[in-house]
Amino acid sequence: MKKSIGAKPTMLTNPVLIIGTYDKDNKPDIMAVAWGGMCNSMPPCIAISVRKSRYTYENLLLNKVFTVNIPSEKYVYEADITGVYSGREYDKFAENNLTAIKCEKINAPIVKEFPIAFACKVIHTIELGTHIQFIGEIIDTIVDEEVLNEKGLPSIEKINPFIFDSAANYYFSIGKGLIAGHNAKLKKEKE
Amino acid sequence: MKKSIGAKPTMLTNPVLIIGTYDKDNKPDIMAVAWGGMCNSMPPCIAISVRKSRYTYENLLLNKVFTVNIPSEKYVYEADITGVYSGREYDKFAENNLTAIKCEKINAPIVKEFPIAFACKVIHTIELGTHIQFIGEIIDTIVDEEVLNEKGLPSIEKINPFIFDSAANYYFSIGKGLIAGHNAKLKKEKE
Repeated sequence: MKKSIGAKPTMLTNPVLIIGTYDKDNKPDIMAVAWGGMCNSMPPCIAISVRKSRYTYENLLLNKVFTVNIPSEKYVYEADITGVYSGREYDKFAENNLTAIKCEKINAPIVKEFPIAFACKVIHTIELGTHIQFIGEIIDTIVDEEVLNEKGLPSIEKINPFIFDSAANYYFSIGKGLIAGHNAKLKKEKE
Repeated sequence: MKKSIGAKPTMLTNPVLIIGTYDKDNKPDIMAVAWGGMCNSMPPCIAISVRKSRYTYENLLLNKVFTVNIPSEKYVYEADITGVYSGREYDKFAENNLTAIKCEKINAPIVKEFPIAFACKVIHTIELGTHIQFIGEIIDTIVDEEVLNEKGLPSIEKINPFIFDSAANYYFSIGKGLIAGHNAKLKKEKE
């Protein structure tokens, strides 16, 4: 039986995106975002949504650039912390024993310990209610060499990212590979 | 060693969102979208990006509503097919042995066999390049009763959704639970 449960933000497979910005004093800050994802192929763009009350929001307005860092499973605790505390009160890099590296292409910090980072330039800002959506054009992708596969692309199995289930408020790891994409055939085509 | 690999849409943990729309003749259509995700809490909104060449794009302009259906792992093949073929040429419901049910709240079809669907009303449209982003306000969430947990919320373990790795072009299942969200404490706070 189908049941209506009302308007709820219970998407199950949200990404965990750690947003890196500098503040007005050039202090690096990071914040976890689960409302976000890829939104364009060419130019490649990532959308992230941030509340106006967040320190990251101020930093985004100031610099109009950000990094999207993807943590490995072993950093799930540190990733969660970055969404709980504010950069106004804490140096979230130092408190988490994480290292900020200045991104070469934009004025935003990369988390050294996280295997992959996207350097993004804000190209759109959309007011949505509780959140403001920032659309960032990906200018560069910075990856630890050891997590690249033989094609020179980041390997999900080596990176071990994780997702956030907003219905249960719980983080989950990635499981086994299923099938290749864009490959399935309709019965008609197989005949 | 960090290595720059350029501007690439290699987000690893993309959702698999099956977008349901009716066409001008009221034929139900479905299409897989990996560029998307939650983008606002109140009102709850989902962003999806669609190419202008897609039949779904026409249907979205026509009706300004859509459903976001989340398939279980056992439907990964059917989900993939909906991204490969066009509703202009095929009835993707019939060809996949899937059943369209009219959503009660909006003029869009739900996939009966998929355990959860979000009924969405388009509130913003943003041109981004290859893709147009549609922001849909969630009007209702329709869930199979058997996948609800004791709190009346959809259970990721019962639904068994999966993700799309756009670097490897491969679908992956969800793995084990890690930790609860918004719960981690800084060293300072623990002392």
